[in-house]
Amino acid sequence: MADERKTSPSEDRRKRARQNGVVQPLLTDLYQITMAYAYWKSEKINDTAVFDLYFRKNPFQGEFTIFAGLEECLKFLENFHYSDSDIEYLKQTLPQTIEPEFFVFLRQLTADSVILSAIDEGSVAFPRIPLLRLEGPLINVQLLETTLLTLVNYASLMATNAARYRIAAGKHISLLEFGLRRAQGPDGGLSASKYAYVGGFDGTSNVLAGKLYNIPVNGTHAHAYVTSFSDLRELKTKVIVVLAHRTSGVPHDMLDLCTHWREEVASLLSLPASEASDGELAAWISFAIAFPSGFMALVDTYDVRRSGLLNFCAVAMALNDLDYRALGIRIDSGDLAYLSKLARSTFEKVAHQYNIPWFAKLKIVASNDINEDTILSLNEQGHKIDCFGIGTHLVTCERQPALGGVYKMVEINGLPRIKLSQDVMKVTMPGKKTAYRLYGADGHALIDLLMRSVEPAPQVGQRVLCRHPFQESKRAYVIPTRVEPLYKVYWQNGKITCCLPGLQKIREKVQTSLDSLRNDHKRNLNPTPYKVSVSDNLYNFIHELWLQNAPIGELS
Amino acid sequence: MADERKTSPSEDRRKRARQNGVVQPLLTDLYQITMAYAYWKSEKINDTAVFDLYFRKNPFQGEFTIFAGLEECLKFLENFHYSDSDIEYLKQTLPQTIEPEFFVFLRQLTADSVILSAIDEGSVAFPRIPLLRLEGPLINVQLLETTLLTLVNYASLMATNAARYRIAAGKHISLLEFGLRRAQGPDGGLSASKYAYVGGFDGTSNVLAGKLYNIPVNGTHAHAYVTSFSDLRELKTKVIVVLAHRTSGVPHDMLDLCTHWREEVASLLSLPASEASDGELAAWISFAIAFPSGFMALVDTYDVRRSGLLNFCAVAMALNDLDYRALGIRIDSGDLAYLSKLARSTFEKVAHQYNIPWFAKLKIVASNDINEDTILSLNEQGHKIDCFGIGTHLVTCERQPALGGVYKMVEINGLPRIKLSQDVMKVTMPGKKTAYRLYGADGHALIDLLMRSVEPAPQVGQRVLCRHPFQESKRAYVIPTRVEPLYKVYWQNGKITCCLPGLQKIREKVQTSLDSLRNDHKRNLNPTPYKVSVSDNLYNFIHELWLQNAPIGELS
Repeated sequence: MADERKTSPSEDRRKRARQNGVVQPLLTDLYQITMAYAYWKSEKINDTAVFDLYFRKNPFQGEFTIFAGLEECLKFLENFHYSDSDIEYLKQTLPQTIEPEFFVFLRQLTADSVILSAIDEGSVAFPRIPLLRLEGPLINVQLLETTLLTLVNYASLMATNAARYRIAAGKHISLLEFGLRRAQGPDGGLSASKYAYVGGFDGTSNVLAGKLYNIPVNGTHAHAYVTSFSDLRELKTKVIVVLAHRTSGVPHDMLDLCTHWREEVASLLSLPASEASDGELAAWISFAIAFPSGFMALVDTYDVRRSGLLNFCAVAMALNDLDYRALGIRIDSGDLAYLSKLARSTFEKVAHQYNIPWFAKLKIVASNDINEDTILSLNEQGHKIDCFGIGTHLVTCERQPALGGVYKMVEINGLPRIKLSQDVMKVTMPGKKTAYRLYGADGHALIDLLMRSVEPAPQVGQRVLCRHPFQESKRAYVIPTRVEPLYKVYWQNGKITCCLPGLQKIREKVQTSLDSLRNDHKRNLNPTPYKVSVSDNLYNFIHELWLQNAPIGELS
Repeated sequence: MADERKTSPSEDRRKRARQNGVVQPLLTDLYQITMAYAYWKSEKINDTAVFDLYFRKNPFQGEFTIFAGLEECLKFLENFHYSDSDIEYLKQTLPQTIEPEFFVFLRQLTADSVILSAIDEGSVAFPRIPLLRLEGPLINVQLLETTLLTLVNYASLMATNAARYRIAAGKHISLLEFGLRRAQGPDGGLSASKYAYVGGFDGTSNVLAGKLYNIPVNGTHAHAYVTSFSDLRELKTKVIVVLAHRTSGVPHDMLDLCTHWREEVASLLSLPASEASDGELAAWISFAIAFPSGFMALVDTYDVRRSGLLNFCAVAMALNDLDYRALGIRIDSGDLAYLSKLARSTFEKVAHQYNIPWFAKLKIVASNDINEDTILSLNEQGHKIDCFGIGTHLVTCERQPALGGVYKMVEINGLPRIKLSQDVMKVTMPGKKTAYRLYGADGHALIDLLMRSVEPAPQVGQRVLCRHPFQESKRAYVIPTRVEPLYKVYWQNGKITCCLPGLQKIREKVQTSLDSLRNDHKRNLNPTPYKVSVSDNLYNFIHELWLQNAPIGELS
């Protein structure tokens, strides 16, 4: 899969049409279609509108969000049309009084007259700064709402969650996503694998995600594999034929080698070899014969110390005799700090005793019910884990299973719209706007600035007044060393107008974008809020409209 | 869509193949495929195994679970095969040392030699009693694990969540699922709509779910529709042509009628008509012209009392003049108990004043961030809501976003397997088993009884000893008035062997199955655990195996 893609001529559309088939215009709320009819019937067919898609609060009690899902939104726009069977279904479902011309109108509708501007996929994003801005005919733009929200909300939530796990684990630990079986539906699992990778995971267990998105896939065996053997006599294949140079072509009896090494290692570790499970050893001998250069074992089926580690070392040493290097172990239960240290010290003993330094560095994977807090707690306790395999908590985003993205009309026919609310968090930012990220002298992002789109962009080295959108006295002058315009037009005239980066590039973008944030915005506990501001012009514009629209109450 | 379906001849397969395209054999964990190769390489190709799919704990701190997802599992078995491109991907992804014959083996693999037994979809189910039992060649059965778990876990979680909302709301309140935009991926949304309906919801806003599953769809308009009008002068279409008999064929000026009625109702309610929003009235006039017999209005864009209710009553009375009956209102913010009572009393006043009794019964829909606890709290406070529209909390199952279903080997080549664990909850029930639900004299389900499949079934009127699986002294004699065998064979010889009920029948099954449970098992706070037991024979079988497999430690 190529990392870069040129602007798509129409014959490229089919290639990109590998989107999940359920992403289609009917994947929406019915009220979008009833509203469309009411607009049509009200002769609002030529009305134009601007909608902002944004969220009001960062998830997971954090202070940043990773924006993801943009490419899926663009694919949806590319393929947007109602099929004959869709129209047929709507005719049956909507009231009989609907005029038939409306269905003709709907049948020919596309997203070609819509303009979509967006923040780059993979960027950090903040509350109130729109992720997407949609402009175009009111009806067309309204009809996109639900599907765009569905495509952005979970993708961004998942990428943010993954990025948080990455921050907790640090840059040098591998992170693998193992969540498919607990995900919310088959596509929940597939999206989770994709956006976990975007957010900073190194791979997934999900084979289809590997195939569709070119994500590295990982996996060895389950407890069932171990328990499917109960005895060394069950081994039908005991021989490994080695291809490597030193011993090439000679068949070697793995059973002999492994039982020999089990005695040796048991004596080194002062453990009784007799307590180690023969079923487990049989299982691993067969697994090593199948994957001599990819041997990784799940060591906690019986007893990690007295059986798992001993049997593993026996098989790994036997493989070593044949010039193969085992990969490592996975631990799926128990005290991960203690067991990982035990495993590491065992590997170090064996490495030292037989003078094979790489043995000390065998990979230790941990995978039992891990979440962000477990990782932070393991960091505090000290551990020797090289890789976490993370499932349920990651993919269901248990700590907050939905991002509350909304899609609000901010302008109609060139006139701004504001939605008021008792809750100031819910007041919309009226009018067509643009946004900039202003950077400070140390290279970190200082503040995001939302402006009216008619205003000139802030300039490097020039003082700009940034205001809190609602608190009059909260203001700051900023002299940016760098000004990053946050929006690009991604869709216009029925075409994707920008080069779309591949998944790998989006994944890199997440990390560079996060690097531009100060650490205190990213920490797990009580992070500092990143400032989101409005220009003086936008501030006055909002508050004028607010006063115009808020009725003056009467007390008596 | 037909409610019943006959056993499928192969030409029916294509019809049923409307499953989400991402449900395919590669939607699995890589380790299933590496294990398959290791089994194949170990000459275990003719080994047979039995696996149980079950969960260990009911979700949401409750004491019951609704089993769902079976039909999707059967469709998956029907379509199970690796495509050429799957094989190509696996060849590239797995180690180069894999023997090419394995891919030939994999390419021709189907689920035809597998037997699947299951509890009926829509039944209540309990911890440890398998939902599915899979028998067949070890490799085939192992390869199904992840996908079956993905299909059962979320479907059952979602149906259970919906059933809990239904219990909280009572039988006479409508429940609508509005969660698509916050769901975990597009298919998360689609599955949510489907299984919310199964669990007892009455409909969804999700149009595609309506089309695919024949679920009633609902929806009116959003706040954006209201804010898209700011003035009565914006109304281009003011005239409604009535088809009903009394006033037929005559065009009526809705604007005149509505402004007249707004003055009337304002005076009745002692409110200043001037404070009601003209934009809101304009929006509703246009909406009523589009949907004269389906007028339902979202009344909280500006002020429910001073604008929304007044404007709504004006439009509803105008429609009444033309022989149309408005449907009601939706409230999406604020104090739902208070506002619903206010709305009801307003409707009653108008009904009384103008002698139109149905006006008092206009439907009140509430839809702001509702969860199970909100409903229970509203019940306590008293409210006048007829229908809840529920989104985020329902579809993401926020209180517990994953069901921890597992898939465990219990028998291989006719020999039982037990997996031990420090945690007694995680000990598996060995061997091939069957299960019965025993009913008491009052018709309620008393206890589920797991037995070895070689044992004779319990008989009505005959005393049977039911034992706690792990606590020796916990035993009870039960004389059932009814014995329900829980499993049917649903898949054998490559075919679905039972009539599959349609969604509607599964939905009914949920309610009859829940009705068979005593209320104390279903209550929200501290419900009584439903008893899950094993036969005396199975008890002894488990504990013998346990002792055989648990090593005797040595203390020194």
